[in-house]
Amino acid sequence: MSNQQATLDQKSVTAARMLGVEMIEASHSGHPGIVLDAAPMAYTLFEYHMRFNPKQPKWINRDRFVLSAGHGSALLYSLLHLNGFDLTVDDLKAFRQMGSKTPGHPEYGWTPGVDASTGPLGQGLGMAVGMAIAEKHLAAQCNRPGMPVIDHYTYALAGDGDLMEGISQEALDIAGNLQLNKLIVLYDSNDVSLDGPLSMSTHDNVEQRVKAASWNYERVEDGNDLAQIDAALWRAKRSDKPTLIEVKTVIGYGAPKQGTNKVHGTPVGQDGLAILKEKFDWHEPSFTVPQAVYDHFQELVAAKEKQYQRWLEIWASYQQQYPQLAAQLMNDEFKLSDDALNYQPGEKIATRLVCDDALQEIARQNPMFWGGAADLASSNKTLLKKDDNFAADNPLGRNLRFGVREFGMAAALNGITLHGGTRAFGSTFLVFSDYLKGAVRLAALMKIPTAFVFSHDSLAVGEDGPTHEPVEQLAALRSMPGVDVYRPADANETIASWQVIGKTTDRPSVIVTSRQGLPVLAAAKHAPVERGAYILAPAQTNHPAGILIASGSEVSLALQARERLAKEGIDVQVVSMPCQERFLRQSKQYQEMVLPPRLDKRLAIEMGSSMCWHRFVGLNGMVMGVDEFGTSAPGEQVIEKFGFTPERVAAAFKQTA
Amino acid sequence: MSNQQATLDQKSVTAARMLGVEMIEASHSGHPGIVLDAAPMAYTLFEYHMRFNPKQPKWINRDRFVLSAGHGSALLYSLLHLNGFDLTVDDLKAFRQMGSKTPGHPEYGWTPGVDASTGPLGQGLGMAVGMAIAEKHLAAQCNRPGMPVIDHYTYALAGDGDLMEGISQEALDIAGNLQLNKLIVLYDSNDVSLDGPLSMSTHDNVEQRVKAASWNYERVEDGNDLAQIDAALWRAKRSDKPTLIEVKTVIGYGAPKQGTNKVHGTPVGQDGLAILKEKFDWHEPSFTVPQAVYDHFQELVAAKEKQYQRWLEIWASYQQQYPQLAAQLMNDEFKLSDDALNYQPGEKIATRLVCDDALQEIARQNPMFWGGAADLASSNKTLLKKDDNFAADNPLGRNLRFGVREFGMAAALNGITLHGGTRAFGSTFLVFSDYLKGAVRLAALMKIPTAFVFSHDSLAVGEDGPTHEPVEQLAALRSMPGVDVYRPADANETIASWQVIGKTTDRPSVIVTSRQGLPVLAAAKHAPVERGAYILAPAQTNHPAGILIASGSEVSLALQARERLAKEGIDVQVVSMPCQERFLRQSKQYQEMVLPPRLDKRLAIEMGSSMCWHRFVGLNGMVMGVDEFGTSAPGEQVIEKFGFTPERVAAAFKQTA
Repeated sequence: MSNQQATLDQKSVTAARMLGVEMIEASHSGHPGIVLDAAPMAYTLFEYHMRFNPKQPKWINRDRFVLSAGHGSALLYSLLHLNGFDLTVDDLKAFRQMGSKTPGHPEYGWTPGVDASTGPLGQGLGMAVGMAIAEKHLAAQCNRPGMPVIDHYTYALAGDGDLMEGISQEALDIAGNLQLNKLIVLYDSNDVSLDGPLSMSTHDNVEQRVKAASWNYERVEDGNDLAQIDAALWRAKRSDKPTLIEVKTVIGYGAPKQGTNKVHGTPVGQDGLAILKEKFDWHEPSFTVPQAVYDHFQELVAAKEKQYQRWLEIWASYQQQYPQLAAQLMNDEFKLSDDALNYQPGEKIATRLVCDDALQEIARQNPMFWGGAADLASSNKTLLKKDDNFAADNPLGRNLRFGVREFGMAAALNGITLHGGTRAFGSTFLVFSDYLKGAVRLAALMKIPTAFVFSHDSLAVGEDGPTHEPVEQLAALRSMPGVDVYRPADANETIASWQVIGKTTDRPSVIVTSRQGLPVLAAAKHAPVERGAYILAPAQTNHPAGILIASGSEVSLALQARERLAKEGIDVQVVSMPCQERFLRQSKQYQEMVLPPRLDKRLAIEMGSSMCWHRFVGLNGMVMGVDEFGTSAPGEQVIEKFGFTPERVAAAFKQTA
Repeated sequence: MSNQQATLDQKSVTAARMLGVEMIEASHSGHPGIVLDAAPMAYTLFEYHMRFNPKQPKWINRDRFVLSAGHGSALLYSLLHLNGFDLTVDDLKAFRQMGSKTPGHPEYGWTPGVDASTGPLGQGLGMAVGMAIAEKHLAAQCNRPGMPVIDHYTYALAGDGDLMEGISQEALDIAGNLQLNKLIVLYDSNDVSLDGPLSMSTHDNVEQRVKAASWNYERVEDGNDLAQIDAALWRAKRSDKPTLIEVKTVIGYGAPKQGTNKVHGTPVGQDGLAILKEKFDWHEPSFTVPQAVYDHFQELVAAKEKQYQRWLEIWASYQQQYPQLAAQLMNDEFKLSDDALNYQPGEKIATRLVCDDALQEIARQNPMFWGGAADLASSNKTLLKKDDNFAADNPLGRNLRFGVREFGMAAALNGITLHGGTRAFGSTFLVFSDYLKGAVRLAALMKIPTAFVFSHDSLAVGEDGPTHEPVEQLAALRSMPGVDVYRPADANETIASWQVIGKTTDRPSVIVTSRQGLPVLAAAKHAPVERGAYILAPAQTNHPAGILIASGSEVSLALQARERLAKEGIDVQVVSMPCQERFLRQSKQYQEMVLPPRLDKRLAIEMGSSMCWHRFVGLNGMVMGVDEFGTSAPGEQVIEKFGFTPERVAAAFKQTA
């Protein structure tokens, strides 16, 4: 490195630091601590290691970068700006302001160059693991001799907070087991967290811990030493394991309160800014970067753009020679033609078993479809039977074995989905969706189509008892914006749900399936699941008494109750509502066709929290739900004890106002 | 150990094994794998190490035992039976049957001798950590020379699944940091999980991992060797650190499919039972234990009962000499006299700051009250300012520093609460309640009064953006059975909420507080928060137009809208509903007094998922909620953007049917 180069590097790091703290000053809000301490490592990574093209921020073979410590957004934005991404000085000035491109935490799909939404700690690490999984799989599946169309690294920058979160351990273990050698984590190790010195709450030895998870460990003693950081990154790239580089830093480096939690989340103030300028020998007006620094970045980026051009050439030949694979890589839908899937009306089959059939067909019809389970594949029925396990030595495998790590699984699935090129699902019991809820939320925020399969969807779980019987999980998932929750009534609705999920690319989907057998309903064949709800059994007369609304296993129960009521001369129509969210997005006209306002004698039936159903029944209606915990006994007995029998449903309908 | 003793020990272990598998056979449901492999370690622990009294299963100074691998319930029940707890052979025969004392997973408060409900993996470890924290604190706080009234160990039995869960890492770190040397975990290391060999999903080196967390590690090579297990337990007790004993076992030991996942969760069958009987030289009819074995257990328990008698003697003198401390140890309520807490109507103060004041007062008035945060004490405002940190070398401290470990914190809080002798709270941002939801659920299932404090309760979080702005979290928590969620409208309701929480001993409580200042409402002074909702501002006429219902920060908004409507001649009453759950438990009469059925023109207002409010407004009413994610901008601007202004509320009311 020449002297001039070294000077430019230092000035560039200072530019990133100063822009970052100036953004925070301007908005009176943000986290200067990490901006000041992590700028050198982020700069070295971006400029001397990462491959990207600021003009093509979605290039599929770019190196991925996940700022797991999402509160360092100001640092990321300043680097994106300096590297020529579509982020102007005005955008930087609008940091954390309404509608700006520079929100408080990085938002995927909103700011060019942001590869994942982060902020909820630990999840960034999980997503980076998923991206590295996707890269390894796609490289094995798609690359051809001389045509490494997928060949990139995944980087993450994590802080102490990330590593304290339990999900970090799950991510470490998953990556270690799979030997994801192209995953490199920079650990901003500054010994301070929000509430004070790290020693108050942790004595974790990170080196020992990551080695225990079969990772390579590298250490940089001085987080301001670009050469040390650079060397560690080179060693990491040569390792045959995933690498964590512990970079020792001083939080808020250069600020008056450096080294303390006072500089973590509070702007440094005008005085602090003056001291920083002095310290870093920086004499520019606010938000001003010398042209020489801009030029330096441009030069570095020009080299990256050449790498992109080389890839484009390969890609052009690849598209010619392997048009199918090329199309597959760019596809984000999967299809399910159901010719081979037939269920006889009257037959009883658990929807988890139908889900199993559907998954086999989807896997057969879509080579880009894969997924796994949190050690419950055998119960969830989500093993792709014709495929092997994805493993360190078998990157072509399509069954992901996440272990009992629900949250880590879900974050990794989000990472796989973010990477692009495949569609992925993950499964566990519905009751354990509690463990991974934070990742469903992030998928919804990012508007990405991760698919979650949750089996054992009600009290019918039975013997395992209340810890394993979901009650409130459906309400929790349905109350979340931006996610569609499907609870199919039978085999036909299960198939239809998967068909809709395949075509859905702008949000995550959750499908919940039954443990117990459910009758196949003739009327549900090719059900309009995409509309969320429909009249499954119409009224017999022009003056029906009311409506039974149900989902999942309670739909056939509603049909039985309808028959019983019919014998008493009470005519009701039955509405199956497999997906509330989709129904609520339909036109008012459609909604009122399915639920005519004049029919306000309504009973909603679902073995779960009643909260979700009141909006459909109103004050004159009733909900037969479950607002207490279940009990341990054979499933049918539990169902009966909680009153989910045709007699009780019929009686309840008669009680509605 | 004499030969006779050794033979009796072996027979006793066999008795535990056989009862366990017979229970599973009888119910055709359960997990024989762990019963067969972990019986020797559980037996050695219970008989040769643990102090308990089967006649006094709630003895406060008993050693605690948490079966973190809760699917091993059959083993626990058989040991409890053999040790003379109130659990008959008939109870064992009714394993997993309706209403039996032997449900599918251990249930605290239901089966004598069960110290914690377990099943959702990993949480048992967290609860054991909490119990050990409570023991350490109470020993320091309450013991007096010659009177060690609190002096016991906490044991947990964990499996591979527990250790794969991220929460296990959080628990390890918390315990290691606090050097909880009286916490001992038996790790049933059988290399198999539900879906197959552990090697599919993990290469974690547990020894290295626990040492990284400052634990002592012991190893038993042969899980059938009682002497080895016994020796390891003795070494563990002498360590100055928490200890994990890795006991190598063969899953389903003795059964035809031993060593494979086929024996994890499927009964062994009559053939398997015959083979087991052969293998263990056991010739008893089903559910039959030789008298000699019962006698052996009785002898061992007699010695334990003597220990209990000695403690009783100490306790008697202690009660005389330190009546206050003794009463404190047996108390499970805390009080809050609010003489010192006065807020001026009109003044604006964030409820998180009022919560801060309340916590200082509660801590002053109740020495048994304590708590901590997941590294957000400074933001949640939950530091007990006159107290030190609870630390390895300062067990008297009352501020628990959990680090960024929400789930581990919540499970530990449950463990502290289960232990008894104190009341504990824990805090984080409302949006991160997602990370610990599973532990709130377990607290609700166990009916224990853990208190959760979640600040930053709405979009008003502002600049941090949608990842940090809760939307659906209130709905998720409210849909959960058995937990009361308080969202106080102002300072007065905040104080009243804490007073109610102090008196609540049969369920967990959640209190959510605002980041932003809220006007102090004169009419809310001594509000009847225990009733969940009340008329804060009555109608002015006998024919009001309708009702505005709100919680938290939206209550003062509703009052402003009411004024605005009044100017237009529209008379509405305002109902403040700080706790939906409590309101729903009131008499129909009270409910209809607050929400008269004839007034069906209703508008509910809350900056969160609308789902929770439809039950109160019906089809003729409306909910002003938030059913999309928030945005990053200053809080007041976000509030305005989402329409939470007096004008918009008034306009919305006029639009209701």
